[in-house]
Amino acid sequence: MTEFAHRFAAHHPDGTNPSAVAVLGQCGRPELETRHTIPARQGRAVRLRRGERLRVINPQGSQVGDFWAFAEADPGEHLSMEHMRADLRKLTPRAGDALVTNRRRPILTLLEDSSPGVHDTLVASCDVCRYHKLGHQGYHDNCTDNLRMALSAIGVKLPEVPCPLNLWMNTPPRGNGDMVWLPPVSRPGDQVTFRAEMDLIAVISACPMDLLPINGEDAVPRDLAVMILS
Amino acid sequence: MTEFAHRFAAHHPDGTNPSAVAVLGQCGRPELETRHTIPARQGRAVRLRRGERLRVINPQGSQVGDFWAFAEADPGEHLSMEHMRADLRKLTPRAGDALVTNRRRPILTLLEDSSPGVHDTLVASCDVCRYHKLGHQGYHDNCTDNLRMALSAIGVKLPEVPCPLNLWMNTPPRGNGDMVWLPPVSRPGDQVTFRAEMDLIAVISACPMDLLPINGEDAVPRDLAVMILS
Repeated sequence: MTEFAHRFAAHHPDGTNPSAVAVLGQCGRPELETRHTIPARQGRAVRLRRGERLRVINPQGSQVGDFWAFAEADPGEHLSMEHMRADLRKLTPRAGDALVTNRRRPILTLLEDSSPGVHDTLVASCDVCRYHKLGHQGYHDNCTDNLRMALSAIGVKLPEVPCPLNLWMNTPPRGNGDMVWLPPVSRPGDQVTFRAEMDLIAVISACPMDLLPINGEDAVPRDLAVMILS
Repeated sequence: MTEFAHRFAAHHPDGTNPSAVAVLGQCGRPELETRHTIPARQGRAVRLRRGERLRVINPQGSQVGDFWAFAEADPGEHLSMEHMRADLRKLTPRAGDALVTNRRRPILTLLEDSSPGVHDTLVASCDVCRYHKLGHQGYHDNCTDNLRMALSAIGVKLPEVPCPLNLWMNTPPRGNGDMVWLPPVSRPGDQVTFRAEMDLIAVISACPMDLLPINGEDAVPRDLAVMILS
């Protein structure tokens, strides 16, 4: 067994990722004002009503969270990085920014960010193909499947796989356009807080990447946590 | 009539954009080795077989071309900017680069680029919402509808609207991540040539943006041209 196959087996003894069945609360409505864990390598969906706030917490500071948001009324409308960048005229949102959908309507506002503000909007969520290209053999947990499973678990059909907002991922372009894959600069306990600008479904995946140091120098995926604030 | 409504009426006297009905050749297979015009403000689909080359030509040098590619066998697989950037580890492809799909398979290779190589991979195609946000009232030609219409015209259902490769669009991020909207630096007659790595459908839209100077300082949309090389 390779080191990575061993890690996978250690994390999922029965060979499955619980994201497809482990639901937060009733259909994605967990208890408010309460901290809920997103276990390492897994994804969860959270339903928010307009005006509620969603806090995503990075307990160890080294963990990347792939983040998506879909309109409750029509998941074909979703947070879109390519529309958001054009709307903000910048690569990365900062506190106070409204984040728009593929119909250019605000779906979230980034209210607060305790971290240094290094997030990625450029890179697709990891998938099995990505791990295979990096040399992994067989199945590997991945954020794209976590997205699919987390929405499936609350009965929502995924219309497409949008580019995620990769919270705390540190893969900046250099001046010549070349990109580098670096560990996060976030710190233990760092958190971002969004306000829902419409009824929506957010999905957070605690990225299972363990072949590159984007989840810290030790490349060990860790938990994230979320909380809904009314 | 506003200046822009006047421009629209002048270009489409019957109030419609021909992209939905004007097909190149038989179902998107125009005569090979022959130059075909993509009229200003319009889009066209072109079918390529694996190994064929597609040349996109910028006759005046100032025109942006929104560009997409879909697998013929399954348009749900398409050229994907967020996967391509991760695969290339850079923002913008250069000659010799393989461009991958949302399944991380090469769909095109960028063989040659006579221009200075300034293209955009970050910005969504324009749509009616974009023009309304810029102050336009009523319908305005846009690249997203051109994509929809060009595929519809050859009987292909658009599965989603991927982020385009915006040929010659000059909207680079600065060092602080802020983006600027500038005229192209391409020159009259500049061209890019792709090789198809699978049977595919390419769509090119001669961007109708006339409210920002991305199609030149005079903000006048102009023709593009394409040629299939066997």
